[in-house]
Amino acid sequence: MDKSIVKERSTKLREIMIQKDMDVLVAISPENVLYSTGANIITQKMLRDRLEISILPKDGDAVFVVCGIEESLARDESWIEDIRPYVEFKESPIRFLADVLLEKGLDKKKVGIELHYLSNKFYKELTDYLPNTQFYECKNIFDDVRMIKEPQEIEILAKAAKLSRKAVDAAFLTAKIGDTERHLSTEIMTNLMNMGMDWSFMVLGTGARSMLTHPTPAYIPMKPGDIIRVDFGGILSGYQSDLARTAVIGKPSQVQAETYKKLANIQREVIEGMLIGTRFCDVYNKCKILFEKNNLPFTMPHIGHGLGVDLHEHPIVNPLNESEIQENMIINIEPLVINGGFAYHIEDLIQITPYGPKILTESEMIDKIPVIS
Amino acid sequence: MDKSIVKERSTKLREIMIQKDMDVLVAISPENVLYSTGANIITQKMLRDRLEISILPKDGDAVFVVCGIEESLARDESWIEDIRPYVEFKESPIRFLADVLLEKGLDKKKVGIELHYLSNKFYKELTDYLPNTQFYECKNIFDDVRMIKEPQEIEILAKAAKLSRKAVDAAFLTAKIGDTERHLSTEIMTNLMNMGMDWSFMVLGTGARSMLTHPTPAYIPMKPGDIIRVDFGGILSGYQSDLARTAVIGKPSQVQAETYKKLANIQREVIEGMLIGTRFCDVYNKCKILFEKNNLPFTMPHIGHGLGVDLHEHPIVNPLNESEIQENMIINIEPLVINGGFAYHIEDLIQITPYGPKILTESEMIDKIPVIS
Repeated sequence: MDKSIVKERSTKLREIMIQKDMDVLVAISPENVLYSTGANIITQKMLRDRLEISILPKDGDAVFVVCGIEESLARDESWIEDIRPYVEFKESPIRFLADVLLEKGLDKKKVGIELHYLSNKFYKELTDYLPNTQFYECKNIFDDVRMIKEPQEIEILAKAAKLSRKAVDAAFLTAKIGDTERHLSTEIMTNLMNMGMDWSFMVLGTGARSMLTHPTPAYIPMKPGDIIRVDFGGILSGYQSDLARTAVIGKPSQVQAETYKKLANIQREVIEGMLIGTRFCDVYNKCKILFEKNNLPFTMPHIGHGLGVDLHEHPIVNPLNESEIQENMIINIEPLVINGGFAYHIEDLIQITPYGPKILTESEMIDKIPVIS
Repeated sequence: MDKSIVKERSTKLREIMIQKDMDVLVAISPENVLYSTGANIITQKMLRDRLEISILPKDGDAVFVVCGIEESLARDESWIEDIRPYVEFKESPIRFLADVLLEKGLDKKKVGIELHYLSNKFYKELTDYLPNTQFYECKNIFDDVRMIKEPQEIEILAKAAKLSRKAVDAAFLTAKIGDTERHLSTEIMTNLMNMGMDWSFMVLGTGARSMLTHPTPAYIPMKPGDIIRVDFGGILSGYQSDLARTAVIGKPSQVQAETYKKLANIQREVIEGMLIGTRFCDVYNKCKILFEKNNLPFTMPHIGHGLGVDLHEHPIVNPLNESEIQENMIINIEPLVINGGFAYHIEDLIQITPYGPKILTESEMIDKIPVIS
């Protein structure tokens, strides 16, 4: 991501700060630190106590508090010039944050901070340093800005979606009866990496294991008559992909062929209704009604979600979300059905455009179940 | 991991609960939920608000609060029989936790809970439900139990370490000048997956990028004279591997050969001193002195760490840790030095035994820098 594009986000964030009467925005979650600074410090997700903190005042320069170990990377990747490294285990990142707020006179102002992410331990430390400062949850501000994607973000997400679809299509084509779940998952991920992406997650199960929501692929051979369900994702330039596919091993039974066909048609019909201005709860309810019409059991708490630097972003397509679809939202639609002892799952990525939904996975509308033979 | 082995951990945890005068232990972090329940619910790390909560009272049965989507997997993998699924977005996992504590009369007792992990948002919700309950940080209890590994854990960690070492050795053997960083990292990860492991993380940089602590591999060709540094890990049955290696592209210069040789010898000398009863700060200081003796700049805040279901576990080998080495600790030793514009890094995994340290990576002591040609 170009530094200038990431810097431009601070303008958007400052506009919302003014609307919401906030004086500074403090990002702590790996997603919002990446989004607001441009620095992809992967250890944030691996080592939760090694905080990286971006501090964006309404007026004045931004500050980036980083673990000393990550200073060189932060200087390399971020547009923020005022970088303050702390020595891990010896110095506290929270103390550094408090000092920046004091230095800029922000301790007496309204501080927006990610309370949803900050652990209770760190929160206590922060409020011990600054007992009189008022802290407000600022998650919504980031959620709102991140929900509408920029052109470069859409380009990356579209590329990641297409590569992921190709990775699984190719793996299905070369898979054969008797290969293990593990063999197939390795094929998919190797394809993904060879095309330039990194691993995010891999869920794959055959037979009854397809009904476990998140089974880890095992050394179980794929046997005729079984359904295989895969739900996986990669990472490209810090952005996620997330794709689910279902196939049958050997010749499909009538129930298998029909269940898949119904699910594929439902997914396409739901997607086609995703026009600007439609409410998310209505998209969800439409899916629910289509399941009922097709005599399929409907059990999903949500049928889709936004995608970006995080795997599940706003908007969530569930019955409680009464907000409306907007241009350049990027959303996964992923109906799943359990029928006859197997789970079927189809997930594609959509971009909302003024001309209707655009399927970024670039998958053909095929309502015939893929066969591994 | 066998259910009976995981169940046995509750006996150990209950013994410490009695010592520490605690009445119930509540695990929320993905690592401690996996450790105490045996269920590997991978979405815990991906979707932070989708909490899974294990509740282990000093007396009486354990309870496992899970997101409904994960119920089947929890029943499949955990020894805990009382599983309580909540409906995501509609029901609150924290409310479920509060209800269990009320039901068992634990709201008036001493509740150990992972305050270091629980976000301020969830903490507030919990204390709003149970304003009179006393909550105590219980991270240390889990840290202490997890620090000493069980035989089955050692078996898994040793296997993961050996496979990871083979994965990178093989990739170095087949790599050639002109291959990109990205090509090499894909080779390493494909080797790892083909041997049965999953991706955890990948850091790889050539030339000046070797000095960035956590560079993401790029489409940069490896050119003669450059140093390449890789630090990566996989996951096997929920347990981590973590390994760093350094190589030179083409013929090494005298400085490169000497720097590597010094670092390799320092690492082995530090490891050899890791006997039961030695203090971690002394291990750290020994490393520091050896760097000075060899005229190498020493800048590391820590030189090693425990490894298990988490990537950095106790013990941490740093100057502040005055505790002593114990049998069946599993520790990475990873000195890193920056010299002549490149970073050199060697990391291996050690098991502490009564007969001295055992190198689980099973790497030969080679102080000649690996060459990619």
